[in-house]
Amino acid sequence: MINPYNDTYFMKRALQEAEAAYEKGEIPIGAVITINNQIIARTHNLTETLNDVTAHAEMQAITSAANYLGGKYLINCTLYVTIEPCQMCAGALFWSQISKIVYGARDEQRGCISLNTKLHPKTVMTGGVMAEEASQLLKRFFIEKRNLN
Amino acid sequence: MINPYNDTYFMKRALQEAEAAYEKGEIPIGAVITINNQIIARTHNLTETLNDVTAHAEMQAITSAANYLGGKYLINCTLYVTIEPCQMCAGALFWSQISKIVYGARDEQRGCISLNTKLHPKTVMTGGVMAEEASQLLKRFFIEKRNLN
Repeated sequence: MINPYNDTYFMKRALQEAEAAYEKGEIPIGAVITINNQIIARTHNLTETLNDVTAHAEMQAITSAANYLGGKYLINCTLYVTIEPCQMCAGALFWSQISKIVYGARDEQRGCISLNTKLHPKTVMTGGVMAEEASQLLKRFFIEKRNLN
Repeated sequence: MINPYNDTYFMKRALQEAEAAYEKGEIPIGAVITINNQIIARTHNLTETLNDVTAHAEMQAITSAANYLGGKYLINCTLYVTIEPCQMCAGALFWSQISKIVYGARDEQRGCISLNTKLHPKTVMTGGVMAEEASQLLKRFFIEKRNLN
């Protein structure tokens, strides 16, 4: 039997969240957190709606998953996020001790890789899953925003 | 006339917040945010109470100050925090474009200075204000915690 639950499957769900952000005029980044192939948090960037720079998709996903689990550590959990996490989100993921991070597209300027943010030793990070789709959505957002102004 | 509103004055308020955290069994770190010598946010660490690794004093202070100001950027604001911010909080402060950060004691292991977290070019950071008091409170917390276990 084919296992439908691979990284692409969950990244598609994260991309749906990014599209929901796009529809609200938010920078389109989405995230889901899974445990044992079950989604326990799905969130998207809400910094404009909430007037809050801390309302990145990943931050909300961490809070939401911890709430679901009834504990603050995300052991055995995987975060899928459409764009590489920033310093703040990678710093939060450090504290969460999450097991795995899968991102879509790189953020060369403000992502945690270029800025050398320290991840928890228990955390594995991989990327490039549906990177083109994640990146295209972001580009489309900024082009439309520029044309509106 | 003597101006009572100096860094020590506001750091004392942040220390009162840290003491409130201590009383709740939280790692005792407190913060206030000011604008024009007026306190617009006062918060303390609530990671245990809220079961949420993102509930550091600084994160709550950023959200609270933005809420007060009705905008997400903390231009002309100063954060006073009893312990040097971690990567997550410094990353959030980057996004907030806060003008000034004043911390009490250093966190050599997990603070943003040792870990080289990027601050916003508009942000100035200084430290060492009531460092001994902030550091002693933290030490007392961990000694008592060790003795209880």
